[in-house]
Amino acid sequence: MADLSTCPPLTRVSVKAAHERIKPYIHRTPITTCETLNQIASTPQCERCTHTGPNIASEPAPHDHNINGNVSSYTAAPNVRLFFKCENQQRIGAFKARGAFHALGRLIEEEGIESVRRKGVCTHSSGNHAQALALAAKTHNVPAHIVMPTISTPSKIAGTKSHGANVIFSGSTSDEREAVIREVIANTGATLVPPYDHPDIILGAGTQALELEQQVDDLLTQQPDLGITGKGKLDAVIAPIGGGGMLSGICTALHGTRIKVFGAEPNVEGANDAEQGLKQGKRFEKVSTLTIADGLRTPVGAIPWSIISDKEKLEGIYSVTEEQIKAALKVLMERAKMFVEPSAAVSLAVVLYNESFRQMVQREAGDKGWNIGIVLSGGNTTMEAIAKLFAAPEKAEERAEAKVGVNGERKAENVAG
Amino acid sequence: MADLSTCPPLTRVSVKAAHERIKPYIHRTPITTCETLNQIASTPQCERCTHTGPNIASEPAPHDHNINGNVSSYTAAPNVRLFFKCENQQRIGAFKARGAFHALGRLIEEEGIESVRRKGVCTHSSGNHAQALALAAKTHNVPAHIVMPTISTPSKIAGTKSHGANVIFSGSTSDEREAVIREVIANTGATLVPPYDHPDIILGAGTQALELEQQVDDLLTQQPDLGITGKGKLDAVIAPIGGGGMLSGICTALHGTRIKVFGAEPNVEGANDAEQGLKQGKRFEKVSTLTIADGLRTPVGAIPWSIISDKEKLEGIYSVTEEQIKAALKVLMERAKMFVEPSAAVSLAVVLYNESFRQMVQREAGDKGWNIGIVLSGGNTTMEAIAKLFAAPEKAEERAEAKVGVNGERKAENVAG
Repeated sequence: MADLSTCPPLTRVSVKAAHERIKPYIHRTPITTCETLNQIASTPQCERCTHTGPNIASEPAPHDHNINGNVSSYTAAPNVRLFFKCENQQRIGAFKARGAFHALGRLIEEEGIESVRRKGVCTHSSGNHAQALALAAKTHNVPAHIVMPTISTPSKIAGTKSHGANVIFSGSTSDEREAVIREVIANTGATLVPPYDHPDIILGAGTQALELEQQVDDLLTQQPDLGITGKGKLDAVIAPIGGGGMLSGICTALHGTRIKVFGAEPNVEGANDAEQGLKQGKRFEKVSTLTIADGLRTPVGAIPWSIISDKEKLEGIYSVTEEQIKAALKVLMERAKMFVEPSAAVSLAVVLYNESFRQMVQREAGDKGWNIGIVLSGGNTTMEAIAKLFAAPEKAEERAEAKVGVNGERKAENVAG
Repeated sequence: MADLSTCPPLTRVSVKAAHERIKPYIHRTPITTCETLNQIASTPQCERCTHTGPNIASEPAPHDHNINGNVSSYTAAPNVRLFFKCENQQRIGAFKARGAFHALGRLIEEEGIESVRRKGVCTHSSGNHAQALALAAKTHNVPAHIVMPTISTPSKIAGTKSHGANVIFSGSTSDEREAVIREVIANTGATLVPPYDHPDIILGAGTQALELEQQVDDLLTQQPDLGITGKGKLDAVIAPIGGGGMLSGICTALHGTRIKVFGAEPNVEGANDAEQGLKQGKRFEKVSTLTIADGLRTPVGAIPWSIISDKEKLEGIYSVTEEQIKAALKVLMERAKMFVEPSAAVSLAVVLYNESFRQMVQREAGDKGWNIGIVLSGGNTTMEAIAKLFAAPEKAEERAEAKVGVNGERKAENVAG
């Protein structure tokens, strides 16, 4: 990996330079809008759940309607227009391609292609970063060694192998993974390309924000009649946070503009380490959760933390329950026809169901409302995984048993995205 | 419905006029491409199944590999670039909005808005046409009465009601439906807008072909470097056929151009009535199938038949099994990230798995290959329906039992899309 001391500063200018570097290798993914989701998002939760109102979302609103007996606490009606950045249609099916192509490009620039090809690159990842680095390495004809936990989704292992990477298996704890990656480095001399905790990854990931900003401007300028009631430009962006590479990249890209940046996080089993960390003023170094948002099971990295904990760069982080993520996933697929992985639904879940977030938007945006960019971070899930998530209710108990069962998965510590 | 004697002729010029009429009310849906699907489609079936080759599709190819002991029969390698027309992102989630807006617009032009508002409109449909007519009627402030079978998907009933339509329930056989619709007409004087067997519906449905043709030209002109190895224009379109409104509309729109049109059909339980009808030179008037492609359970209508049975307008119809539809649905979602209903996957299933079609393309297209437009007709399915389709194998027997069980569904005759 490029030496930290030689990395470009974490600024909007550096994100623009990163964008120029990776443009030939990545897709400029489309943005999309959905009238129905705008309508749902702008309607109070009470009015769209089966408890009291006409049921726009065709399902029970995933909030506890009787919390403290106070029904009126779910009445925020922010006026929002949503713009989805479809990184699920990025190469390898997730935004991770941006960071991987940028990091490898910088490494080649610094060390020379001959040296990089001789040494190769390596990483440890159970998911999208593995496939992204494998693709970038193949593109530049560089050997790649990827350490993956044996419990990784078979389709992700197959995807990584299909790009010609050398896949080495490990246990699923951080200690087990790190032991194997040390061995790989000792044997091959390969350079480690970490999944998120590096400036080159952060700058690469931030490039999607530049596209989103421009695409929303273009859309609102060229198609003022597309059924969107408000005008203007992008007001805010909300993106999920796991290791924090993407969110800190977006903060970096948009710092100095008028666009506000928010983070979205699952909160089951302490998965909201970033939200809690900001409250307590310290970074959590370990997280142990098996949230369905499997891309967000990691603690925030040190460099991302230094960015997101800066109040001038990030407005705040909001978290949601597993049921809320599932409900957002359902409407994204059924209504907007976007095929995404659960991690990609977390931002929309905050917009639809986190009442604190909704109240804040209503207060800040007023009648004029906000144009909100929502990052759909990836689409790498399977029909079988969806079938498990949405199986008929009578199967719920079986699944609960399976969840804590085999392989001691629940105890797994997750350190890489 | 506009009187047949006053309908515009079924020509490309009339489709263009229909397009101008409905443009303010419909989305110009995007087209999309997917490198991985191009690669899969251009690879022989034998090389991408788990039986013999590297498994690009990550699953067993859904053909009987040992048929007649003749492995070499699955070796066609047509060179194809696929362009998906995303009518799953059309208003109400399916192409049906086009026909409904066109038919109602023509009716209003002919009878005057006052008369149409006084009498109202009606139809019978279990699916997308119901929602489409409800939306068009709401838009023009016209009362709509929709007869729906009680066994309709709850989300489709809710969708129809959400547009303010008066939903009346009926049994699921054609006799039961027609009895109820006669009663509605007697009571209200409402004008029947049939789902597919009318020139105005056909002309409206055909408009998507004009967009597809233009969008592929634009894409190949403006972005010659998008990873597509061939150049040129659209060579062929393949679209699913149920009642035939869409396919005959596309045939009408493209007649006189160099673009070839093909139909795609499920073949379980005689669902391939159009394919069989063309072979026997006669239209089948009844079909009884519960194919998972629920939008294609209907027999071809008389007017659509008069078009698709014209060899100058339609090249041919190819059919696929339920397993092939499922496999195509899976790759569309997992690889192209398109959320579609099973009916919308039937065209891709033909391209990927119908060996006769693949051999024909290889022969006709040669090394240069073809740019093929694939109509993704709709996206109205639910997570629960997907969960049932892709549930773990050990549940397959239970589902098979359930399928023929309650409500005598299997006996249902399906006459409306």
